[in-house]
Amino acid sequence: MSMETDIFEKRAPILVQNVRHQDRPVDLVIADDGTIAAIGPGTGREHEYEHVIEGRGRLLLPGLANTHTHAAMTLLRGFADDMLLQPWLAERIWPLEAHLQPDDVYWGTRLACLEMIMSGTVAFNDMYFFMEEAARAVVEAGLRGVLSYGFIDLGDAGKRERECRATESFIDHVSRMAHPRITACVGPHAVYTVSFEGLSWCGEYARERGLGVHVHLAETRSEVEEAIAATGRRPVTTLDEAGLLGPRTVAAHGCWLDDDECRLLAARGATVSHNPASNMKLSTGRAMPYPALRAAGARVALGTDGCASNNNLDLFEEMKIAALLQKFAWNDPTTLPAREALALATVHGHRALGLGGGLLEPGAPADLILVETHIPSTTPLFEVASSAVYACSGCAVTTTICDGRVLMHERFVPGSEEVLVNAARSAHLLVERAGLFETGPIPTQKS
Amino acid sequence: MSMETDIFEKRAPILVQNVRHQDRPVDLVIADDGTIAAIGPGTGREHEYEHVIEGRGRLLLPGLANTHTHAAMTLLRGFADDMLLQPWLAERIWPLEAHLQPDDVYWGTRLACLEMIMSGTVAFNDMYFFMEEAARAVVEAGLRGVLSYGFIDLGDAGKRERECRATESFIDHVSRMAHPRITACVGPHAVYTVSFEGLSWCGEYARERGLGVHVHLAETRSEVEEAIAATGRRPVTTLDEAGLLGPRTVAAHGCWLDDDECRLLAARGATVSHNPASNMKLSTGRAMPYPALRAAGARVALGTDGCASNNNLDLFEEMKIAALLQKFAWNDPTTLPAREALALATVHGHRALGLGGGLLEPGAPADLILVETHIPSTTPLFEVASSAVYACSGCAVTTTICDGRVLMHERFVPGSEEVLVNAARSAHLLVERAGLFETGPIPTQKS
Repeated sequence: MSMETDIFEKRAPILVQNVRHQDRPVDLVIADDGTIAAIGPGTGREHEYEHVIEGRGRLLLPGLANTHTHAAMTLLRGFADDMLLQPWLAERIWPLEAHLQPDDVYWGTRLACLEMIMSGTVAFNDMYFFMEEAARAVVEAGLRGVLSYGFIDLGDAGKRERECRATESFIDHVSRMAHPRITACVGPHAVYTVSFEGLSWCGEYARERGLGVHVHLAETRSEVEEAIAATGRRPVTTLDEAGLLGPRTVAAHGCWLDDDECRLLAARGATVSHNPASNMKLSTGRAMPYPALRAAGARVALGTDGCASNNNLDLFEEMKIAALLQKFAWNDPTTLPAREALALATVHGHRALGLGGGLLEPGAPADLILVETHIPSTTPLFEVASSAVYACSGCAVTTTICDGRVLMHERFVPGSEEVLVNAARSAHLLVERAGLFETGPIPTQKS
Repeated sequence: MSMETDIFEKRAPILVQNVRHQDRPVDLVIADDGTIAAIGPGTGREHEYEHVIEGRGRLLLPGLANTHTHAAMTLLRGFADDMLLQPWLAERIWPLEAHLQPDDVYWGTRLACLEMIMSGTVAFNDMYFFMEEAARAVVEAGLRGVLSYGFIDLGDAGKRERECRATESFIDHVSRMAHPRITACVGPHAVYTVSFEGLSWCGEYARERGLGVHVHLAETRSEVEEAIAATGRRPVTTLDEAGLLGPRTVAAHGCWLDDDECRLLAARGATVSHNPASNMKLSTGRAMPYPALRAAGARVALGTDGCASNNNLDLFEEMKIAALLQKFAWNDPTTLPAREALALATVHGHRALGLGGGLLEPGAPADLILVETHIPSTTPLFEVASSAVYACSGCAVTTTICDGRVLMHERFVPGSEEVLVNAARSAHLLVERAGLFETGPIPTQKS
């Protein structure tokens, strides 16, 4: 097995040889422009390359795409669980977030990226604060990030103005970066936290600048009921009237969508990001209606939500929980079979984010992972999708490649030590600053 | 870090030093009789030992107990998923099981044991066929097994006689083995597969021989409705009248228990094994009523069920799915908090199986695991139970010790290669014998 240390250093032509793809062994050649040059049996013989990765005993899969998270909330992992929504937010999450500093978001996002790399995710859709720091973290970590500043005006005109400027400022920042792995989008938080004026501004601004939209939608029953009571409209209608629904829109949760809303989302080409672990942990009371969305022809992808309500970013685990929840909620074990669950986390996820990943073919981005087959989870191996969805966790991933760069190989990620230590320290200091130290985090130490 | 190869060879006094237990670092001394000799800050200085395991950067937890599985069904992992219950059983599972041979059960159980060792489980409650082979596999793997022959008479008197003799034969076999890690119990499959005469024989035989009982209970709505239609009694009443309910009884699933049944189970001291992943995957339509069982004071533990309906044996994952499902099903995020979920998988599980594990104190069995803290899942580390339940998978376990013997250290399990290769081959040949080869398993190869 090739373990040259410089395989991580820069992009170079790479041959992944004898790796299992679907039901046969293939060679995969990665070009030094970050795309797949060739894939097929024995194709390695026809190409030049600088590094060889032995793929025998490994499965080749597209890298996964996480279509809804708040990456820096890794810092809050395990700080508050098993609470009712309001005290959880009011007594634990918001008081901590009030003390967030830019550096926290940088290290929290680095920790999230490390976790995603180690569990096979290559692209993610993020909404949070201090997003310039998030963008810096994503660039350094090597992933693809679709990043939005979380726009929240709570109906206050002054706050709305500041949120418009903050959104513009972040979009301009990303434009100046002009980094191929960073995309900015507009992030109106939700219909219950943003005025119709704010939503409309976001819709108009996204259209003007040709940007995608990232929004929360129909997560709880009360959100829908309060929207109807206040406006006479269900949330999807409001988003549509604000010009926020289109093929570049990702709406997270969607637990309480009705059939008409599913059809309208389908008609607009918007994607609903299913976040089953978070919805179950916070007891949203209803599962996202996957059968209705599918019947309507709507796009669906998968997300983990932030680590405060999950508490990890492992999309392998999320695929399983999605397949289990959909079967359980709609009382039909044929709902969301393994191959569909794998597609939600790969090709549908990348498409929702406007990215070209999810397909392993010449010319596509070299965004891919290798999965160990020599472990109990993949023994026996009757059906790749079943093993990936139902038996594996993200730990089965041995190699993660994004944009042609090797980010992890044989479970080794360069620089992980620094990320773990600094993220643990940031979390510790954040809780201390907020005066919320009760049980206290344990600074991570090298064993 | 101590990595003497002979740490695996035989029991010897071991010092685990500087390991984090709850909120402080301790030393733990394991005696060569397989029990914990001492635990506390600096206690290592006062004892002699042959091996040292460095515990810095690791959490110390009790080894987990899986209270319901069919271990050898690892061979069927991923062979058939996403199907309705009846065709799944009639067209895929039963035709394969009809071709099972003793050697299959041996290798399937070895694979299950390897998977459990690698995910921190030290004891399990098993029900299947060719149980002499299962017992041999468990002895060789080093775990604790509570083993039962699955008694199924389908109301046929001749078959009942044969099942009684098969049960007696297995119990006698285990008596002759007289192995400290192997317990036999009586395994009447369920009220819908065993006649009342068969159930009563099992109850009487268990009482005579002082054995525990392992049974399926109230898994599906139709099981309960058909029982009422045929006998006028709900399943728990029938089990009670057959003398099958007591403190040594483990009843798996319990999805459709009503409040009276919860109270009767509590009165008898029986344990309900919650199997959330399997119940969701097969769409049982209702979650085990944990709040009602808890209100009644009934005992609850955790199980994975077999790999055909899960599809793994990772109790870390099962703890999370249990906590998520209970919150979702009863619409309350405070239901089954992390500490309770961890207790179900540890102290309550060992107690249900009549074992002394689950507590880390002098004199208790040295059944314990170490968990890595230097990974994203445990960074930051605010609350051990939250990290274990919500963020970790079984891959976070670095060391597994059962009965004072080190079965895994630094993720290395001696002999794992042979188990993976032979189990994959058994699965392959089984499907071939049954004439059910469609997609075909891929024999495991060393990478």
